[in-house]
Amino acid sequence: MKTQRVPEATINRLSVYSRFLERLDEKGIITVSSNEIAEGVGVSPPQVRKDLAYFGEFGTRGVGYNVQDLMRYTLKILGLNVPWPLLLVGAGNLGYALSTYRGFNSRGFSVVGVFDNDLNKIGRKVGDLDVYPPEKMPDIINKHKVRIGIIAVPPKSAQDVADLMVKNRLHAILNFAPVSLNVPEHIVYRNVDLSVNLEILTFNLGIRDS
Amino acid sequence: MKTQRVPEATINRLSVYSRFLERLDEKGIITVSSNEIAEGVGVSPPQVRKDLAYFGEFGTRGVGYNVQDLMRYTLKILGLNVPWPLLLVGAGNLGYALSTYRGFNSRGFSVVGVFDNDLNKIGRKVGDLDVYPPEKMPDIINKHKVRIGIIAVPPKSAQDVADLMVKNRLHAILNFAPVSLNVPEHIVYRNVDLSVNLEILTFNLGIRDS
Repeated sequence: MKTQRVPEATINRLSVYSRFLERLDEKGIITVSSNEIAEGVGVSPPQVRKDLAYFGEFGTRGVGYNVQDLMRYTLKILGLNVPWPLLLVGAGNLGYALSTYRGFNSRGFSVVGVFDNDLNKIGRKVGDLDVYPPEKMPDIINKHKVRIGIIAVPPKSAQDVADLMVKNRLHAILNFAPVSLNVPEHIVYRNVDLSVNLEILTFNLGIRDS
Repeated sequence: MKTQRVPEATINRLSVYSRFLERLDEKGIITVSSNEIAEGVGVSPPQVRKDLAYFGEFGTRGVGYNVQDLMRYTLKILGLNVPWPLLLVGAGNLGYALSTYRGFNSRGFSVVGVFDNDLNKIGRKVGDLDVYPPEKMPDIINKHKVRIGIIAVPPKSAQDVADLMVKNRLHAILNFAPVSLNVPEHIVYRNVDLSVNLEILTFNLGIRDS
């Protein structure tokens, strides 16, 4: 794989392409052109070709791409050729919702441990999982070889949780608390601000109204 | 406002810039350069200038931007100079989490009505709100002049909910169910697949490991 920096928008679209290819594969479709991918996911054909070109040469001119090969390749690029156990901190509503979110399972992600420091929540069930106290984090991480932690706690506790995840040697953190966190350079970190999605809608409503 | 198509990545960053400018304003900072914005949010200075250039001329060469002016302008571009009442369908864990999500309120979004067709949920409280049956949707939409609906139901019910929102003349739909929906062209639509965020992490872990 090339090590040149790939734009995040490309990774995003790759995720969309891989889902589209899975749907084609389910329908038994063998080959697909970049124009068909473009049409199917709503981007331009040159964009599809440019996105795929980051990762090497694909397809045969005039024939197109083999659906299964390209699907497997996109999944591999995204790191989804292996399952990913996840650790989740925060057994509130968002934590419950995320631990049972069907979109995760269909992509090979599974929450294997839910943690909270609230004594009222520890010992309760979230789906099939028990809510554990933070002290149990090293056990779960070792047992399942967890590398990714999800933060779903209120903003004021989020930095403490991130620090604990770093201390427990997780490699990546996905933060759902609407607050920026400080994490060391070696941690792969991403902040999910759900309101950005609404802001893209209100921007587009503004364009439409004007 | 120009009507040329603005890339979604630019709108995304505009949202990030506006938050950064709010923080500067809270600290009493009067002016800021594109280099400082770039540094503060982790993008390149030319990118900041290019993003802002979509919307006209800003700032004074050698002086930079007035923080309050640029903050208000970015908020206005995003449509956030007015409050946005939201309607939410699905009183499960995700619905609960979204209706009380603090990140929404801080950007002027507020859920004014929660709906579910589950008789066990109707009449319950979600935060300060009652859960209503779908029939009550027109009342709430008229009362609060709601334009945006959020779908937080299981995948199998999501298309029905979208159809109901369209029938009730909402203008925009944000779909959290991990499934693609068909909506008419005139509806501003966005699908939030939370697993994409994880896939960006696993992609970056792959880059780091290789």
